[in-house]
Parts: sequence; structure tokens; C-alpha cells
Amino acid sequence: MLESIHSPADLKKIPRDELLNLTNEIREELVRVVSENGGHLAANLGVVELTVALHRVFDCPADSIIFDVGHQAYVHKLLTGRREQFSTLRKHGGLSGFPKISESEYDAFGCGHSSTSVSAAIGIAAAKRLSGDDSYTVAVIGDGAFTGGMAYEALNNCAGNNKLIVILNDNTMSIARNVGAMDTYLNRFRNSGKYFRLKNGVKRFFLHIPLVGKGLVKLATRVKNGLKHLLVRENFFEHMGLSYYGPLDGNDEGLLETVLREAKEDGHCSVIHILTQKGKGYSFAEARPDLFHGIGRFDPATGEPYSSGGGNFSAAFGHAMCELARKDKRICAISAAMPDGTGLADFAEIFPERFFDVGIAEEHAVTFACGLARQGMKPVFAVYSTFAQRAYDQLIHDGALQNLPIVIALDRAGLVGEDGPTHHGIFDAAFLNQIPGFTVYSPETYRELETCLEQAVSLPSPAAVRYPRGKEAPCAMEAMFADDTLAVYDYGCDPAVVFYTYGRLSAEVRKAAETLQSNGISARVVRLIRIKPLDVSRLASFAQGARLLYFAEEGVREGGVSEALVSSFAEAGLCKDACVFIRAIAGQFPAHGTTRELLEDLGMTAEQMAKEAEGMVGSLAH
Amino acid sequence: MLESIHSPADLKKIPRDELLNLTNEIREELVRVVSENGGHLAANLGVVELTVALHRVFDCPADSIIFDVGHQAYVHKLLTGRREQFSTLRKHGGLSGFPKISESEYDAFGCGHSSTSVSAAIGIAAAKRLSGDDSYTVAVIGDGAFTGGMAYEALNNCAGNNKLIVILNDNTMSIARNVGAMDTYLNRFRNSGKYFRLKNGVKRFFLHIPLVGKGLVKLATRVKNGLKHLLVRENFFEHMGLSYYGPLDGNDEGLLETVLREAKEDGHCSVIHILTQKGKGYSFAEARPDLFHGIGRFDPATGEPYSSGGGNFSAAFGHAMCELARKDKRICAISAAMPDGTGLADFAEIFPERFFDVGIAEEHAVTFACGLARQGMKPVFAVYSTFAQRAYDQLIHDGALQNLPIVIALDRAGLVGEDGPTHHGIFDAAFLNQIPGFTVYSPETYRELETCLEQAVSLPSPAAVRYPRGKEAPCAMEAMFADDTLAVYDYGCDPAVVFYTYGRLSAEVRKAAETLQSNGISARVVRLIRIKPLDVSRLASFAQGARLLYFAEEGVREGGVSEALVSSFAEAGLCKDACVFIRAIAGQFPAHGTTRELLEDLGMTAEQMAKEAEGMVGSLAH
Repeated sequence: MLESIHSPADLKKIPRDELLNLTNEIREELVRVVSENGGHLAANLGVVELTVALHRVFDCPADSIIFDVGHQAYVHKLLTGRREQFSTLRKHGGLSGFPKISESEYDAFGCGHSSTSVSAAIGIAAAKRLSGDDSYTVAVIGDGAFTGGMAYEALNNCAGNNKLIVILNDNTMSIARNVGAMDTYLNRFRNSGKYFRLKNGVKRFFLHIPLVGKGLVKLATRVKNGLKHLLVRENFFEHMGLSYYGPLDGNDEGLLETVLREAKEDGHCSVIHILTQKGKGYSFAEARPDLFHGIGRFDPATGEPYSSGGGNFSAAFGHAMCELARKDKRICAISAAMPDGTGLADFAEIFPERFFDVGIAEEHAVTFACGLARQGMKPVFAVYSTFAQRAYDQLIHDGALQNLPIVIALDRAGLVGEDGPTHHGIFDAAFLNQIPGFTVYSPETYRELETCLEQAVSLPSPAAVRYPRGKEAPCAMEAMFADDTLAVYDYGCDPAVVFYTYGRLSAEVRKAAETLQSNGISARVVRLIRIKPLDVSRLASFAQGARLLYFAEEGVREGGVSEALVSSFAEAGLCKDACVFIRAIAGQFPAHGTTRELLEDLGMTAEQMAKEAEGMVGSLAH
Repeated sequence: MLESIHSPADLKKIPRDELLNLTNEIREELVRVVSENGGHLAANLGVVELTVALHRVFDCPADSIIFDVGHQAYVHKLLTGRREQFSTLRKHGGLSGFPKISESEYDAFGCGHSSTSVSAAIGIAAAKRLSGDDSYTVAVIGDGAFTGGMAYEALNNCAGNNKLIVILNDNTMSIARNVGAMDTYLNRFRNSGKYFRLKNGVKRFFLHIPLVGKGLVKLATRVKNGLKHLLVRENFFEHMGLSYYGPLDGNDEGLLETVLREAKEDGHCSVIHILTQKGKGYSFAEARPDLFHGIGRFDPATGEPYSSGGGNFSAAFGHAMCELARKDKRICAISAAMPDGTGLADFAEIFPERFFDVGIAEEHAVTFACGLARQGMKPVFAVYSTFAQRAYDQLIHDGALQNLPIVIALDRAGLVGEDGPTHHGIFDAAFLNQIPGFTVYSPETYRELETCLEQAVSLPSPAAVRYPRGKEAPCAMEAMFADDTLAVYDYGCDPAVVFYTYGRLSAEVRKAAETLQSNGISARVVRLIRIKPLDVSRLASFAQGARLLYFAEEGVREGGVSEALVSSFAEAGLCKDACVFIRAIAGQFPAHGTTRELLEDLGMTAEQMAKEAEGMVGSLAH
């Protein structure tokens, strides 16, 4: 049946009694493709009925549906003309794992980071109002994203925007179990079971009487809404000036359609609070929704991940944190709703008093860390590089300006692969570079990560340690020279080419140098471990006599380490004899795909860099 | 009496019946110094009683008081050993206009930006808990700062932090009149006048009976709190897990003491909601609290500002916006609680439907603008450069990644003078540089601002226009050559020194070039109007034959325009014959003082730069 749906118009034609078959098919397709490509499974299984109901009740693309974070938009993609490409999900050149306005007219607003949907929806609704467009705007936001302050800023501006509907998709989880007072508050609704069950009971009863069913359900719903207003008289959403409907069973497609039509008719700005089950319909995901939140390839028959085994940087970080915390009672760990993703699960269990999960609230996390540091603790905030962007101002204003010894552990620094442009951690080196007083480390191995972290927490000033997603690369080459701040690798004597690089890309650069050597061009690789501050004259000393200085950086060019070094070298008069070249991410957002594919897009594989360097040295010789 | 207070201990000794004299003296001192130095007057007049009560009830610095934004901490400074230096407020080398941990042990946490206090307070309270310190932590936050999402993120993490007290200082305004649903909500409390007056009546009655007064008031307060729980049964703060006290008359010192002691005894995390009058006790400020929010020098007898007259960049921007909006119905203006400060008051009046004040919510503002742009409008978000830092992630993730044609008007770009390090707009050129696809303009005159803004709104991609605080500089020199992207000024033929600069600093640089010329060294000034993207080869062409390329930038060096240009020049092989020098803000936060004084601190006056360039050219000749 899914195959017959080429657009929401086709979906609208399906008789109600066949919808169960459709939702089953959708779930099968989700499990099939995500088990092959990896991705976000549990959240999508939870919103099958919601997405079907939305596309049956609203008329997209005229009506706009905006997903928050967007990892739960797979069903939406399946129903809006992208079923045939669905197997390419998250693959290079294939469908994005998130809504993307350049991918489909049905994607009203792109996303990836949390808590943006209501702001975007208000903007779209306001523009419609100004231009006399009377279509609807719907934001779908999870209870996890609700812990982000931006969602609150938006709710504070919702009232008065007619034809704007906010759907609070409450599955009691963000990625891990939700935290905070708002969650406790929502729990009271969730547990106001009487109303919830009564409503369902009434509705089911009426729906079983053919013909009269629908109209009566509507009436019954209205009565129940009246009741609800008595039971939950003053609630947060009504304080915010929104009409409140809920909580409702979000996996009951019929009920959802009824209430969505009700809200549409109402026309005022409203919030529909639905309870959905994360992982719904796939037993393994129902049992472990956290595991199936974002997952790699797995066996659909058993739910077992095809694990590549072994450790990764997040685990190494978590381990190092436990070691440090054992030795020093002042070490605290902070997570923004990602204790598992950042490797802090063990820490949380062993040192519960010193572990703080603050929700999806990076801004608060940084200033909270500053408060801890101000009072003598040693806080380490572990956060994905891309999400740390949210706290740029707090890093400047609360951390650096007061010179407080906070440590930011930047996981997923550099390219992240399949999650794509919203998630690449390519800005951190550049934005930390700008902030006075920060010390920044970029270890290449687990062992180095430990050392860097140990140094970072011992500093009297703010610091960051950045490390990539996944595993360390095997290093075939011993450094000719290494200390805590850099390592130097020589490929032949009197190098004609000197590479400057750092972090994960170093492995590619070393391979490039090796290629050069085997092609008769001696090369050297200077790998920075501490990327800020830079000892410019020392770094320059490694380049004496070289004909080409090649700077390679898996991050944005503008304001990155390469630009800092090159401009300092130029000021010191060191660019007079040698040719200078920067290979970095300049003026573009890398796409999604494997890291390998993306490096190739960016001209950053060993082969490409070797060829490029060889060409430049060759042209110098002429 | 104020003279006798050298620390809070002295304040505690003052008999209650003499406090009215003290608060009067404090108000006089506030008016005297702010009328001479400029600063934030109205908010400080409103919190005199609160600050006195806090320092009588709590024991600082053991107990920590954290102010939000911090512009209302003048009274705190007066009472914590800084009365004698108070005349130096906001002057170079004098007291900061904000709390500053390096200034006094009584300043528990520095600030300047909004909505950080509760996060910092939770951190400090948690650290105290972990280290067995049983002192109190108090955050003082205004209702304006409450519109910032970060405050909500923090409130979501408050519960369970004992000995943490949040004081909501509600004066129904942030800088201008408050906006949003939360304000409407708070209004219901403010207007629950019955309880508020009853409580005061009871308290006043008891206080007039000597000896028994205090104990009975306490009892009466308790009874009233019980009553309150009946009247306002479910409120936002209790949803957040906090004990709620209020609303109370925040200008009644005795009442405040009583309730603060109550909250102290309670020991749980609590919020005390007080209503204060902005401008209290100085009739001109009571009448126009917005005008006296942040003010320059004025005549204390008449309340009349010593206006320097004439326009400024904010006014020019506001005027240009009205012109554009008349011609194009798609133009919208967005402000984050600063319609006056950003010059948008007229626009708001003429085009109310296209004007959006979103509260202190820069993150929401940017993504809201993206929503407007996505639906075909042309939104311009006017924001102080320093506050735009809050939206760094949204500029990347919602604006640039989707290539949406939003315009960010960055007011107060560069040094802001007396407000100091928390407020300098020195990061914007660098952080916008990093963001793919942004076009950035840095006009030097009002006329240029108009042209740049017109270009910015006509682009199909995101753009920013940055301009300094205050007035345009008179330009004595005609450009030898100018177009929309740059202007070139020559001081003699075959320039030995070529300066590259942009924005306000250009005036200093031109003076430096003039000095060089009169000292026999010919010079050229290349002033960038569009600072991103840069036409590197064209810009390089102006430097042919020069011995020194001098880059001057009123912003951070790291990632700024100078580094971008120098590294591009170096790559193009253009640094081989000429010496290169960058004068920018490197690795430091400039202090507070006049812009002139700060430029001197940074080596950026015309005299300093001329001397520096001359020295370098001289040494090249040897």
C-alpha cells in the first residue's frame, strides 16, 4: 500500500480501516532501511500515526509542517514523494537524515539542532498573516527539545499567531531519560490517567458505532475538553496563551485526526499534547528506546547491532573522566541530555553527586559550569562540537572573560559523517581561537586524549579538548619528536614540503607525506596537539629550508588554526622563501556521507593532498 | 550615614528606624554620580531597599549574591566597600558598571549579558553542597531577563538546590515595556492586588506596635503565605519545583527582610517575587524610567540630558529602515527588547504589523527571522553586536545552512566605551567570517549605512551590516577611488605603506596616513566597506610596490578580516616583498573607558599607528 502513496493526496484517499495496514508497512520499511543504513529509529516508530494523521488533515506543502530536530521526519519523507529514494537515506548523495528545504517542497524548514521549530513556525505563520495566506503552520516538538531555552523563548511569542499549532510529542524521553522540573511537571499530565483513559474509552465506544461515529466523537471530545479545563485548570501552556488539548494517545491515528481537525477549526494558536511510545511496533526498540534512538547497522531479526567492537573516543573520554574523578574530588561532569553519547554513563553511576544532566540546555550548561568553577570545582562539560555552538556567548562572557577554569570536552569534532551538515563539528577550532584565554587541545589517540584532559583540568583558565567521532586511527609511524604540544614526523631529510595539521586528519596527512617521499620529495608533518595557544617561532623553526608549507585542517578555514599560523608566519617574514597553501573547509557546508566520501569531496584524502602538494612543488621547480 | 558603611557588617548595625535616611542618601549618591558619569539609573533606584535588605539578611561574601545583567548593582557596590571609589564608576581605571569578580570579593559572579544569573547560582550552590559549605546563594533577576531562554533552562534545573533563592525583581519593564506571554502571565500576579495590599496593611499595622512587631509580622506573613497558596494555587514557579513567595512590595525594606529571613529558614529552593518601581525616588526617572534606564550625563536638578545633539548610527539605521519599508512591503523589523536602543521606535509606530519585539531572546529572534524569510519576507533583526553572540548557532544552522535571506543589523559593533568588556562588539567580524554564505558590510557613514542596508536586503542570501555606537566621524578627505565595496585614499604617490582597515577605525588610520605623509612617507588607505566576501586579488592590486602592508582592525585578530586577508595574500605569494603587520585585538578583553582611552590601550590611535608604521618602514630601510 505504501508504494501507492506518491504524495499526501494519495494518503488522503485511503479508507480509515486500511490505515492499520499502512502504518504496519511504514514500520517495516523504517526497520528495513535503518537496519541497513543506520539512523534514528525509535523516534520514527513513535510518530507513524502522528505523521499519517498530519498529512491526512493538513494540505502540504501549502500548510507547513516543521519538525524539531528532525530526526523523526523519516515517515514524513516516506509519505511525501520520497519513498523510492528512501533506501538512500543518509548515504552520500542520497536523502538527508533530516528535513532539508533543498530536498523537497514538503520540508518547510530544515533542522538538526534542537528547539528551533516553534521559532521557525512563528516566523512562517507571521509571514503568512502578512501576505494574506490563510494556510496552517504546525510545529512538531518533542518533550526533550522542550528543555531547550529557545523553545521557551518561542512559546513566549506564540500567542496571537492564529492557525499555528504546536504538537508536543511527549515520549518521556529526549535521547536518554528526560530531566528537569519541566519533565516532572509534564509527568503530572501523563499520570492524570483518569481523563486520558476516559477519553479513549468514550472515543473507542463511539467509533465502534458505524456512520454516527465521527461526529459524535467530535462532540465527545469537546465535552472532554471542557472536563479537562476543570481538571487541569491552569497549566503551563495556557499561561503561555495557547489553547491546550491533551494529553492524548499519540499512537491512536483516529483520535489524532479528530483532535487535529478540532484544533484547525478552533483556529487559535494551540498546543496538542500527545503521548507516544518511542520504538512503537518493533519489540527490540520498545524495550530499549535509548539504544535505538540513533543506531548503526543492525540485524532486523534480532535487534542486535553489527558492532564493530572495540573502543571509541567517547568511551576513552568517559574512562579518563572516571580516573580523574577518583583522584580529585573537585572533578564534576556535565552533560546536556547525552550521558550515553558522550561516554559519561559510567561516571554518572560511580559519581552521581558530581554528575549533572541539565537537559538540552547548552547555554545553561556552560554558565552552570562557570558557577561550579567559581566556587572551586573542576567542571568538565562534555558536548558534541556542533551543539557547543549554542553556548558561544557563554564561553566568552561567563567563561573566558572571568578566566574561570572550566573544561569543554568537544566530542564529534570535525566531520561526523552521515548526520551531515547540521551536525559537522567544523567550527569549534575557529570559534575557540577567537576567545581570549582558552587553551585548546586536539589529541589524535585515546592515550593523548587522557593526557590532554589531565592537562586541561589542571589549568587555572578555561580549556577545551576536541576529539572526533569514532575510533582512533592506527598510527604506523613513530614521531621523530614529540612533546605535550606537538609531534613531528619526517619522511626523508631536508624536507621540501612541511605539513601542518592536527587531530584526525593527521593520519591522512602522514600518508600524503609518505607518498611524497616515495615519489622522491622529502616531507615533514608537524602535528599540533595543542592548537591554542601556538608557539609560532617554534612552529616556524620546523619549516626552515622548505619550499612548500602546506596547512591541512578538518574545519573551517576562516579563523582556523591554519589562518592563524599563516598570518603569524607572514608577519614574522617567514613566507618570503616558501610557498604557502591552506587546505581547509572554505565557505561551504560539507554534505552527508561517510567521512571518507566527505574528505574526498573536500580534497582532503591522502591521495588528493599528496598530488596537490607534488603539483605545487613541481611548479615551483620550473 | 552612607559614609559610615564600609562593609555589610556596618549596614547590619544600623537601627531599622534610620534606614529611611540611608536609602535616601543612597538615592542621592546614585543620582549625583550617574548624572556626572552616565550609566544605569532607573533600575538602581528601584533596588535600593532590596539591596539593603539582602545585605542585612545575608552574610556576604560567604553568602553569594548574583545579579542578572548587573546594571542594577550600583547600590551593592556602594554597600560593599566601594563607596569612596564610586565617583570613578564607568571611568577608565575606575569601578566597572557591572559586577566583576576581579573588582571585589563581594561580586560573586560577573555579568553584563542577560539571563545568566540563575545558571551561575545553581553552579555555585551545587559546589557549596559538594564541598560542605552551608552558606546561601541568591540570584537577583529582572522580569525582562526572564524572557531569555537561558533563564528557563536554569529554572528547569533549580529544584533540589537547597539554600538557593531566586529573587524575581519585577518592575514590569526590561529596558522598554516588557513583551510576551510570560509578561501577560506575571501581570495576573501583579494585579492580584487584594492579597498584596492586605499583606502590607497587616504588616504595617503590626510594625507600628513596638517590641512585638517583628515576631508577629513573621507569623502574619506565614498566615498570608498560606492564604496565597489558596489564591494562586498552581503557578509557573511551583511547576518548576520552587517555593513561591509573593508578589511583595519590593520597595518596602522591612517586608523584604521579613520574607528573606523566612525563605532562609525554609531552606528550600525558593523564588521571591517582588514588585519594584523603576526610577523610584527621583521624580524624573519615575516619570520616564525608559529614558533613565541607560543614560548619558544629565542635569540632576532638571533631569535633562546634556545632549550632544545630532544623529547617530542607530537613528540613521531606523530612518533607513522606514524608507525601505515604505518601498517594500516585505521588509520586517525584529528587536530583542530594544526598540529604542536600536533606533526602531519610529518603524514600530509606522509599521506595527511588520515590527516584532520578541523580548530578550536573540536565539529565537534569528530563527524567527529565518521563518519569515523562508515564507518570502525580508526580515531585519537589529541587535547589539555583543548580544548577537547569543545567536551564533542559529546564524549558522538556521540562517546560513539554508541560505535564507535574513539581515542582521549589528549596532554597537566595535568598542562601546564605558560599558566595557561584557559589551564590546569585537567578535562579530570574526564569527561572521566563519559562517559560509554571509555577506558582511561595515559602513563608515550614515549615508553608507543606507546603501549597505539596501544592498543587504536585496541579496538572496544572509547578510549583516555592522556599525559603531554613536556618531559618524567627519571625513576631511575625499576618496581617490570608491565603489560599493571599498574606498581608497592616497597620501602621496607610490605608497610605501598601505593600510587595510574598515569601519570606524578608518578615521584613525587616515590620520595616521596623513602623519606619515607629512613625515615624508607616502601612504595609502584601503577602506573596506564590504568585509565579506573579499576580492583578494583586487585588494592585493592596491599594494603593488609597497614596503609595508599594515592591517588595522577594531575587533579580535583571530579569524578577523586582517588574518583572512594576510593569509590569502601569503597564499597568493604577495608577502614576499613587503613586510606585513596586523594591529587588532589579540588575546585580550579591552577594559572600560572612553573609546579614545581604549584605542590608546590597544595601540590604535592615529599617533600610535603612524609611529609604529614609521618605525617599521625605517627599520626596513636599514
